[in-house]
Amino acid sequence: MIGKLTGFIAATHTPFLANGELNLSVIEKQAAHLEATGVSGVFICGTTGECHSLTLQERMDLAERWSAVRRGTNLKLIVHVGANCLTESRQLAAHAQSLDVDAIAAISPSYFKPKSLQALIECSAEVAAASPALPFYFYDIPSMTGVNFPMSDYLEKAAVRIPNLAGVKFSNPDLMEYQKCLHLANSKFDMPWGTDEYILSALAVGAIGGVGSSYNLAAPIYRRLLSAFQRVDLKSAQAEQYRSVQIIDLMIQHGYLAASKFAMNQLGIDLGGVRLPLTNLEETQKRSLQLSLQTLGFYDWIAL
Amino acid sequence: MIGKLTGFIAATHTPFLANGELNLSVIEKQAAHLEATGVSGVFICGTTGECHSLTLQERMDLAERWSAVRRGTNLKLIVHVGANCLTESRQLAAHAQSLDVDAIAAISPSYFKPKSLQALIECSAEVAAASPALPFYFYDIPSMTGVNFPMSDYLEKAAVRIPNLAGVKFSNPDLMEYQKCLHLANSKFDMPWGTDEYILSALAVGAIGGVGSSYNLAAPIYRRLLSAFQRVDLKSAQAEQYRSVQIIDLMIQHGYLAASKFAMNQLGIDLGGVRLPLTNLEETQKRSLQLSLQTLGFYDWIAL
Amino acid sequence: MIGKLTGFIAATHTPFLANGELNLSVIEKQAAHLEATGVSGVFICGTTGECHSLTLQERMDLAERWSAVRRGTNLKLIVHVGANCLTESRQLAAHAQSLDVDAIAAISPSYFKPKSLQALIECSAEVAAASPALPFYFYDIPSMTGVNFPMSDYLEKAAVRIPNLAGVKFSNPDLMEYQKCLHLANSKFDMPWGTDEYILSALAVGAIGGVGSSYNLAAPIYRRLLSAFQRVDLKSAQAEQYRSVQIIDLMIQHGYLAASKFAMNQLGIDLGGVRLPLTNLEETQKRSLQLSLQTLGFYDWIAL
Amino acid sequence: MIGKLTGFIAATHTPFLANGELNLSVIEKQAAHLEATGVSGVFICGTTGECHSLTLQERMDLAERWSAVRRGTNLKLIVHVGANCLTESRQLAAHAQSLDVDAIAAISPSYFKPKSLQALIECSAEVAAASPALPFYFYDIPSMTGVNFPMSDYLEKAAVRIPNLAGVKFSNPDLMEYQKCLHLANSKFDMPWGTDEYILSALAVGAIGGVGSSYNLAAPIYRRLLSAFQRVDLKSAQAEQYRSVQIIDLMIQHGYLAASKFAMNQLGIDLGGVRLPLTNLEETQKRSLQLSLQTLGFYDWIAL
Repeated sequence: MIGKLTGFIAATHTPFLANGELNLSVIEKQAAHLEATGVSGVFICGTTGECHSLTLQERMDLAERWSAVRRGTNLKLIVHVGANCLTESRQLAAHAQSLDVDAIAAISPSYFKPKSLQALIECSAEVAAASPALPFYFYDIPSMTGVNFPMSDYLEKAAVRIPNLAGVKFSNPDLMEYQKCLHLANSKFDMPWGTDEYILSALAVGAIGGVGSSYNLAAPIYRRLLSAFQRVDLKSAQAEQYRSVQIIDLMIQHGYLAASKFAMNQLGIDLGGVRLPLTNLEETQKRSLQLSLQTLGFYDWIAL
Repeated sequence: MIGKLTGFIAATHTPFLANGELNLSVIEKQAAHLEATGVSGVFICGTTGECHSLTLQERMDLAERWSAVRRGTNLKLIVHVGANCLTESRQLAAHAQSLDVDAIAAISPSYFKPKSLQALIECSAEVAAASPALPFYFYDIPSMTGVNFPMSDYLEKAAVRIPNLAGVKFSNPDLMEYQKCLHLANSKFDMPWGTDEYILSALAVGAIGGVGSSYNLAAPIYRRLLSAFQRVDLKSAQAEQYRSVQIIDLMIQHGYLAASKFAMNQLGIDLGGVRLPLTNLEETQKRSLQLSLQTLGFYDWIAL
Repeated sequence: MIGKLTGFIAATHTPFLANGELNLSVIEKQAAHLEATGVSGVFICGTTGECHSLTLQERMDLAERWSAVRRGTNLKLIVHVGANCLTESRQLAAHAQSLDVDAIAAISPSYFKPKSLQALIECSAEVAAASPALPFYFYDIPSMTGVNFPMSDYLEKAAVRIPNLAGVKFSNPDLMEYQKCLHLANSKFDMPWGTDEYILSALAVGAIGGVGSSYNLAAPIYRRLLSAFQRVDLKSAQAEQYRSVQIIDLMIQHGYLAASKFAMNQLGIDLGGVRLPLTNLEETQKRSLQLSLQTLGFYDWIAL
Repeated sequence: MIGKLTGFIAATHTPFLANGELNLSVIEKQAAHLEATGVSGVFICGTTGECHSLTLQERMDLAERWSAVRRGTNLKLIVHVGANCLTESRQLAAHAQSLDVDAIAAISPSYFKPKSLQALIECSAEVAAASPALPFYFYDIPSMTGVNFPMSDYLEKAAVRIPNLAGVKFSNPDLMEYQKCLHLANSKFDMPWGTDEYILSALAVGAIGGVGSSYNLAAPIYRRLLSAFQRVDLKSAQAEQYRSVQIIDLMIQHGYLAASKFAMNQLGIDLGGVRLPLTNLEETQKRSLQLSLQTLGFYDWIAL
């Protein structure tokens, strides 16, 4: 086991060329940026990475490249292998285990939705068994999957079925359920928090780390937030959290994934656009977002 | 204006006799219990009070009785006057103003749902105008109404339309939107938090008070939580919050409103049962809930 | 019992004065219009009648007036008495029984939603018992209430609990469940169909009548539809149904209830506007709707 | 173009071996059964075919096998190529065009949901362009995808963007929208109906064919339904439709896809079980379903 994840894990974007093909060459720069800004690890091929819009081969290529690139860094590497087709998910899990990675994670199938918690656990078990040497995280994100079982029940029942179960990437706003998971079984499960815009609220009830997409862009803000929280300077922590709220709000208004990818490009990490069914920003939207970020103070906030 | 609401405001249950009729005689005891356990005010005829299952006359009787009873106490009194029929809502608002109360609140109509934010604001404006001398709170609870507009937009636009707008009773789990409201307009709006089971998370981002139903039962837990939070002893605050989570979890398993009313009865405040469409606990459920509360330590936790 | 409802029952609008008050004086004209266009009855104080935006007194006033007015006509009269507060619902039911009406109907409470079918049946039973001499229809409209139980189960279980159960006003698009209800218990239940825009589809599987709001405006179209259906001229029936689709589509685009009330006004039945939370048409919308109806051929289609 | 689809197109199950692998060898028997019972074509790799639980290679293997098998038959062949990853969808489309098939169909991506109708049309356009020589059907099934745009708008706008657009496989219960599509553009679009349990309702408003999964099992019932409908014997058509309702109802109670696959096995077409996240019937469920089908008369109803 890797111990619990601490700090901020960036749920990375997948870089594309202008023609829409995978652009592996930029990953080195992407990793350097993340490490420089204080990110503690990467969660690749997740929702931010447009997992379901990638081919199986592309997902394996990304995992290989990241596995190689992060060697020279202190970044942890978690590979998301979830897919609607569990055969493919198992292939991705086995492939991840053949590489140098720290853990895998898998989402629930969402076209056909498991009708019971037990069916969901069987899905997880199939995937986890394909990479028995790696810690397995269930990736709970009901807003995307429409699959919503109480994670404390999941952990309790899955623990006896999945030997390598590590915890849950909790991309679920329910802070009551979150507390139940945190306190379960002598707090043995790792519960990285997935809603960046109120990670301060999660820290307050016991979170110790987060996995999210705004850490790609704005890690310095979150580092100051965490440091203020740790020295019990809540006013400062609240001010940093509100900065993150304003940034994320802007991204949501412009279409979150496309906007955050555009913002990364503006920072000099050329990740290209998003794939359909997502849509890229129009030129006027780009200018408006750019201007709004500037007016907000974004570039100062993230200066190192 | 009354200044912002601080501390814990109990969203009170409506007491019924065994035959289902209103039981005004128990309100004195109910108020005494709340004040003794450290509650700072009451929010009557809300969701916990089964507002939509009461007749217009019953709502007025409750307001009158509470207005009289709380005179000898330090309890603040907020009267919920929201209804599907705005004519009735206006009657309730005018009636509240004729009494000694601190503020009114109103929910959105929910059978016909406002199609636009502007329509929702017009509904609020009609009601607020019927009690111009009282502060007006919008009561946002999308899980019950299915009406979900961003409250920061509501506040911004309603502020110019509703002179007596005080803020929002925020029974909405969205802590991003909550932060936006808190920071709006130099933080002038009062934003009592409505999700007791993670009020610690709300305090962390800037909440200063809460309105909720578990304060009826378990105010001592929350007072210790708040005091631990204020002396920056987060570990203790988390432990108290987790106690509240466990209590609320038990109530939810047994049917929240009926269970919490039963628990009040067990504490010696005889509030009777709930009205249809809610259903009361079976005898076996009562015993199971009673036993679970005992095993949990509930009665020790709330001892004064 | 009244026997099953046949033909087209208009779910009537509630007439208001310009100042928003009830306008009982127009009901005579409203009834005359409906009878002249071939409607077989009225369903008052339903969704089209803005039930939840009326006071208790207004609902009783409407029932009294309609009860008096329809005496000189062949119109059947069904009074909707459903409300969130069952005490009020019972009052309305008892009041209806004191008048000359053919049946009552009641919707499920929808602020608090019955958690089980049995709880829903108890709600119905309470209301039905307050007017034991009148046939009782459950009014199933999940799109408005969010309450969705299989009506065939409801009928099977409610039949032994509610002696005066007549059937279901089925404002639910599920034609599989509808067939199950139609075939249940030797087809003893009355199942007036509630989705005017495909009543032909319901007739095809066995419906014999409908209750809906477009019969206020466009009964001649539906009478031709029914007559074509009965003489197995499906092509003509389809053409009439498509006319109804086009009219209803226009109303939906402009806000259904406000638009249909405006259209009634244009026909010379001055019903006034809608109450909040619904909103009335702007002048430009009125002109656009008016023009679109004309272009479509609406006024020719409904000419007697 | 192939002309419009008429009669009943079976949305086929994908056959698996006991170990969960693809079982191509049974397809010949599956096709023979379908043709013998009067099915007019097959829609492969759709929801019934567990599309999203298949690997890319398995989908191509299925298409190849069906393309070969149906040569000796009168069955039309439509290949569903929809996937979350449009690159894979395009591969499947191009592959289908290289085979002897009549048309392709594609569902909307559903993990990332198109935010606008235009984005959805772009998705369709990408896929359709990969098999320009084949008619393209959009496969609308909001209950599975959560993507819900008015299909009449889709057709109007997609027609100018997708030269090979043929129509919509309409697995959507909205018979108003269905009529709008049927009447659009001089009725040029093909609109196979996707809700078997009330195809009679669709025929009544103008449908001429259906694609669905119960045609695998019960085509004789539907053929009698259609023939009764055509000779305007509605009573008989209703009786046959109600038989289909009862069968489908039983399947739903037992878990639709697993149950219908089990029933196929009972008919001697050994299709194996379903893949996770779907779950297979327990032994007791199998016996109960088997018995219920027998009691119902199912085996007599489908006898040739």
